[in-house]
Amino acid sequence: MLLSKYFMPIIKDTPKDAQIISHRLMLRSGMIKQDSAGIYSWLPIGQRVLKKISNIIKCEQDNSGAHEILMPTIQSAELWKESGRYDDYGLEMLRIKDRHERDILYGPTNEEMVTDIFRSHVKSYRGLPLNLYHIQWKFRDEIRPRFGVMRGREFLMKDAYSFDLDEESSFVSYNKMFISYLKIFKKMGLTAIPMEADTGPIGGDRSHEFIILAETGESKVFCDKKWINLNIDIDNITYDENLQLIVDQFTSLYAATDEKHDPSQNIKKDLLETRGIEVGHIFYFGKKYSESMSANVTLPNGTSTPVFMGSYGIGVSRLVGAIIESSHDEKGIIWPREIAPFEVGIINLSVGNEHCDLMSKKVYKMLKSLGKDVLLDDTKESAGSKLASMDLIGLPYQVIIGSRYSKDDKYEVKNRLSGEVNIASFENINSFLG
Amino acid sequence: MLLSKYFMPIIKDTPKDAQIISHRLMLRSGMIKQDSAGIYSWLPIGQRVLKKISNIIKCEQDNSGAHEILMPTIQSAELWKESGRYDDYGLEMLRIKDRHERDILYGPTNEEMVTDIFRSHVKSYRGLPLNLYHIQWKFRDEIRPRFGVMRGREFLMKDAYSFDLDEESSFVSYNKMFISYLKIFKKMGLTAIPMEADTGPIGGDRSHEFIILAETGESKVFCDKKWINLNIDIDNITYDENLQLIVDQFTSLYAATDEKHDPSQNIKKDLLETRGIEVGHIFYFGKKYSESMSANVTLPNGTSTPVFMGSYGIGVSRLVGAIIESSHDEKGIIWPREIAPFEVGIINLSVGNEHCDLMSKKVYKMLKSLGKDVLLDDTKESAGSKLASMDLIGLPYQVIIGSRYSKDDKYEVKNRLSGEVNIASFENINSFLG
Repeated sequence: MLLSKYFMPIIKDTPKDAQIISHRLMLRSGMIKQDSAGIYSWLPIGQRVLKKISNIIKCEQDNSGAHEILMPTIQSAELWKESGRYDDYGLEMLRIKDRHERDILYGPTNEEMVTDIFRSHVKSYRGLPLNLYHIQWKFRDEIRPRFGVMRGREFLMKDAYSFDLDEESSFVSYNKMFISYLKIFKKMGLTAIPMEADTGPIGGDRSHEFIILAETGESKVFCDKKWINLNIDIDNITYDENLQLIVDQFTSLYAATDEKHDPSQNIKKDLLETRGIEVGHIFYFGKKYSESMSANVTLPNGTSTPVFMGSYGIGVSRLVGAIIESSHDEKGIIWPREIAPFEVGIINLSVGNEHCDLMSKKVYKMLKSLGKDVLLDDTKESAGSKLASMDLIGLPYQVIIGSRYSKDDKYEVKNRLSGEVNIASFENINSFLG
Repeated sequence: MLLSKYFMPIIKDTPKDAQIISHRLMLRSGMIKQDSAGIYSWLPIGQRVLKKISNIIKCEQDNSGAHEILMPTIQSAELWKESGRYDDYGLEMLRIKDRHERDILYGPTNEEMVTDIFRSHVKSYRGLPLNLYHIQWKFRDEIRPRFGVMRGREFLMKDAYSFDLDEESSFVSYNKMFISYLKIFKKMGLTAIPMEADTGPIGGDRSHEFIILAETGESKVFCDKKWINLNIDIDNITYDENLQLIVDQFTSLYAATDEKHDPSQNIKKDLLETRGIEVGHIFYFGKKYSESMSANVTLPNGTSTPVFMGSYGIGVSRLVGAIIESSHDEKGIIWPREIAPFEVGIINLSVGNEHCDLMSKKVYKMLKSLGKDVLLDDTKESAGSKLASMDLIGLPYQVIIGSRYSKDDKYEVKNRLSGEVNIASFENINSFLG
């Protein structure tokens, strides 16, 4: 992509209303624009990050055996009256009347709707186990939306729903999602710690939040210091193993949010007290919805039983903010490679200088031909402003072309995370790009 | 994908409420489920088709130089009051009050919001031309939603918005979208005919609808018979050519919707009177929104001028229905290859027969290793039911394994469109798959 033809509106001043660093950096780098309270548009580089995060999630949810569907944002109130939750959600639920004065709502979550899909189509135990997920916009009418996309009103969520014949197989499904989440966050360069959690308005008996440690995190968390260097080889775990043993390995180490923390537990000397950001939340709630909504299957003996369910959420748009909270410096964002809007940024500091223009185009073409996402800054901004903008948007690598090295046909290759700069010939550039 | 572990709920009976063939076939093949009037969930194979269509559109919009963003579904009413359209939309606009009693709405289109994004960030003529698009859910509260996803209330739309310095460059942007649309529909195996159209609530001076001919289409259309065999090599047109000449070639042939048809035009003997389905609609409306919303840029001489705009829509979810209307037979859907949920369906007619099971797995693995999307029917349904289901869901190719040919290690390879069946050895299968 040529920056001169792109839409990446960098803001030089620090936005006044943004209280936390991720919000400021997302506004300054032109990733998002606030449309109204807690509602944002995703501009091109923001949209690219959102898409990369979604793709990582989809890929790993598919691997775990879940099937992608797409439920609508608008739901009928009838389903929520059936489950008994229509009144529970209070003012956070965006309630609407359509032109025929029917009660509808903007879905804050989809347990009711997916249970309705299930009961309409699956009648026999042979249809189990089943896990359906989607990535769709949700709305929760927060009284004070804040922290940018971290606590917005309209937000993108991945939510999966499992259906099983009994509690035992439900726990197998639960554990698959548990492991899938650890794999997903790791692929994004994050260490997410699963912590026992309250179930809130979803309900149920078993629940874990997945929390990224970040000093700027919204909630206090307590965990065993061993978490910091925990090294379980999650990549090589397959979903048909006995996952309970692996889940136990993770959950045997102490970790709890403020709400659940027990000050009397006995690892005081190894206890780390810090802050964290919730990026995922999984729930087992058994027959809560299947009983109230009659989602039953027929057994081999002809009798019928309600199914056992769980639900599994990841805050997709919130993750963008959370990753920035945990990966930035005073110059701007530092994207993990897998979710960066572009892999490499090329900066031509001497636009108009024939030789530099040629060198820039040559490396742009070469990197594109290697299949890399590349952004070439070919604008006429000042050198200082170009270098600052490229640091701000946080692409993992920069290739810098300027009069200092161009006479020797050399390029500066900078690693955004380490700050290391190498002087490379054209042939060597790629060897410095991880 | 193994069908025994998939969620593809085939319905054997013809659904009663579905009036048109695409709606019936989408329900029967388990592509969608109706949640409430005009609101649908997309089940796994439906979701796959929707994603493939979206990807074709994105790819070609990117090629044309447009940039993908993602605007929210919920909009503030303020913007619509500013443009003067808040009252124009009538009951079709889903109006909502949030918990603070502020007027918000579910966006039926995004001219106002994108104009606000533009004016917040682009201040100079140097930021032009610019084209921003997104693929996002919209809501229009139709009084009588019908025809399934063809006229739903919540629907997926691609909408692009161009910004230019003057009328002349605006027409360049308009023509790029015109050509991009022809390329997009062709990639989906469709012939879409551009027809002069009314501008309706979007407003403006120049507008074309893109219409697929289908006997079951919603509206009457009149066009020159030459359209049927028109052969302009659209694939090789690049976006930096003089597109006006090419657009003129298309628009010089008579084509008009019922509303615009002029019975006195003089090609009566070559006139084809048929029916069609609108799948795209493009508008040039100049300064309509930039003047009312003060979207101005500064010129080199220091003066300021409102920008010239156009908007360009494709009904993504509606296209799924439209394609089925134009491509099906009495057995079911016939997917064009590029948008089929899977490329190949393998049917094991003798599940439990060790040799057939082995043959099925072998061909499944082989086709997957070639990078093909494959669905293997490994269920215990009857042979007749399996063959009927595979015809119904309309994958371009079927590989059938049964006792008739398995003793010779032979496979039947069927082309869903032509009905042609070839008997193939394992090594030959791929040569029959297009």
